[in-house]
Amino acid sequence: MKTITQKISFPEGIDLDSGNRLDAFDLMVETYGELNESKTNSVLVCHAFSGNHVAAGKNNDVTGWWDQIIGPDKAIDTNKYFVVCCNNLGGCSGSSGPTSINPLTNKVYGGSFPLVSVVDWVNSQKMLMDKLKIPHWHMVLGGSLGGMQALQWSIAYPDKIKKAGIFAAAAKSSTQNIAMNEVARESIRKDQNFHGGDYIEHGVIPKNGIKTARMLGHITYLSEKHMDSRFGRKFQDDESKVNKGVDYEVENYLQYKGKKFSEIFDANTYILMTKAMDDYDAAGNQESLEDALKTVSAQLLIIGFYSDWLYPPERGKEIQIAAINNNIRSSYVVLEGEHGHDSFLFHTNQYSQIIRKFIES
Amino acid sequence: MKTITQKISFPEGIDLDSGNRLDAFDLMVETYGELNESKTNSVLVCHAFSGNHVAAGKNNDVTGWWDQIIGPDKAIDTNKYFVVCCNNLGGCSGSSGPTSINPLTNKVYGGSFPLVSVVDWVNSQKMLMDKLKIPHWHMVLGGSLGGMQALQWSIAYPDKIKKAGIFAAAAKSSTQNIAMNEVARESIRKDQNFHGGDYIEHGVIPKNGIKTARMLGHITYLSEKHMDSRFGRKFQDDESKVNKGVDYEVENYLQYKGKKFSEIFDANTYILMTKAMDDYDAAGNQESLEDALKTVSAQLLIIGFYSDWLYPPERGKEIQIAAINNNIRSSYVVLEGEHGHDSFLFHTNQYSQIIRKFIES
Repeated sequence: MKTITQKISFPEGIDLDSGNRLDAFDLMVETYGELNESKTNSVLVCHAFSGNHVAAGKNNDVTGWWDQIIGPDKAIDTNKYFVVCCNNLGGCSGSSGPTSINPLTNKVYGGSFPLVSVVDWVNSQKMLMDKLKIPHWHMVLGGSLGGMQALQWSIAYPDKIKKAGIFAAAAKSSTQNIAMNEVARESIRKDQNFHGGDYIEHGVIPKNGIKTARMLGHITYLSEKHMDSRFGRKFQDDESKVNKGVDYEVENYLQYKGKKFSEIFDANTYILMTKAMDDYDAAGNQESLEDALKTVSAQLLIIGFYSDWLYPPERGKEIQIAAINNNIRSSYVVLEGEHGHDSFLFHTNQYSQIIRKFIES
Repeated sequence: MKTITQKISFPEGIDLDSGNRLDAFDLMVETYGELNESKTNSVLVCHAFSGNHVAAGKNNDVTGWWDQIIGPDKAIDTNKYFVVCCNNLGGCSGSSGPTSINPLTNKVYGGSFPLVSVVDWVNSQKMLMDKLKIPHWHMVLGGSLGGMQALQWSIAYPDKIKKAGIFAAAAKSSTQNIAMNEVARESIRKDQNFHGGDYIEHGVIPKNGIKTARMLGHITYLSEKHMDSRFGRKFQDDESKVNKGVDYEVENYLQYKGKKFSEIFDANTYILMTKAMDDYDAAGNQESLEDALKTVSAQLLIIGFYSDWLYPPERGKEIQIAAINNNIRSSYVVLEGEHGHDSFLFHTNQYSQIIRKFIES
């Protein structure tokens, strides 16, 4: 699989949804496969909250976050499609974000990096598309926050996108989604090392806060049933405890996962990404989601998972109903998905076949 | 309503479930109504995780946590019943707990207060019963962790209890329950002011950690539907924001509730109480819950609430099935309960009538 990883600069900058402006920015981009001569085989893959540009492939210890779905002969077949994925603006994997140097001050942005939104991401991906000389996307797709971007693409640039895949997502976050994210942000902001977001300047990292936030996140990504069958009420054996305060296997798992994540993910990015998720409302300035979808011409594939309690299937159904009322060609499927919200990440024969049929139809 | 509040000392001490021992302890106790001559009208009310001995009545700013259910002519009628409620061992409302002075060292216990369990609470309540010269309980009841105590009473002291009310509870916590509690504990332990539990000695309080923990707790106590209809995605108006970082009403609510709680509740007690909740398993040393209920002679009233996702109705059904298999006289009712897990706290005509009929039958 031909894979190119590159940082692409946008010295022209971007006007953000919030009214702020970035005078220049970079996007970290990875592509898989090749653009065909007619330039009709491009697929944009949008990552979820903690993802990045590495969507496919295996490189040393790193496996792409959607490697089960993207690759030669996989659901999104890189022998046929030219797949593009970028780390979103505000991210911490190479694109401009809170850990980048602000060119105006020559200091790390830290807490001063402006709020970004799903709309900003789609706009910056449109700029990337132009830079890559891609005339239109055969498909834009993603799960969770990535699904929100796919939906927003179909609304914002109807003539640039033929198909959209919106998986384990919603047209807007629920009150409970916002509430959970606020608890995660609170744990980060109150870490003694946070310093109002300027921790890099202080030479520290608010790891404890990120860890707690991620532990909570993990609970919401997994289904209760999956957690129960995997861990139950089993005690962690003494030799493999991450610390002596741990009693149950599920505690050990969360402690381990949270700590690992806190060593690689940026705290300000955590806050930015969750805010973007909370603030997104596909209805935008329109009266309703139905009104917002009036201009959509892409075909939609909406997939929900029964075991997902973060963005349960009903949230996908809301998009489907608004699509039907607009005579948009759309399919809505609910799959079993044993992994809860995370189910969108994992291949099953059924899931992969549905994606494959849709992209090739 | 005759109300007596008293601290009762147990200089004889208690052997704890964990193998530890408290050489002496106090329980803060409140009683409502009067013991009749035949001593047949006593009711023990057990509090949930953050409750205390003040179950009923209104006294200045403080309203009893179950005042909607307990009082003259209410579901638990204090004109008829002598109602007893104590702050549990390990609590922070007057009973011996982490904020108390350890008589052996003359220092605050802090992090050295031993782990307590539901079994320990029931044993200490049995000692209280003897001290109050109550020969048997007409009924023991409670919601959530309080319901676990009522269940444990029926198992541990079958000849001392005629009826048990187990509301919004379970015979044991689920994996997800444990996971949520572990996130809450993590946020407390990682507060820079926690000092391994010895914060009082250091003259500080880990308020930030308690606040975050409580914010998370609140999400689990409310139903998603209730949260959605109450707050939706509404923005908080500028004048009433608790801080300028707040955008949504639900954020403001959680911030406000979390902060308020952090000013009155003890961090070590938070950890102790959630551990007791996690560790409880009514099956005890038996093979199954069914086996554990073999000796139960009390009548059981098990109530669940559809909107409760912390201890959903299915958890009550598990108790009911084990009871049926033991030919225990038991009733299992699931009520609507718009307040999620917290529904057990609130009077509705249906809920109060069911309790009243059961206690008076």
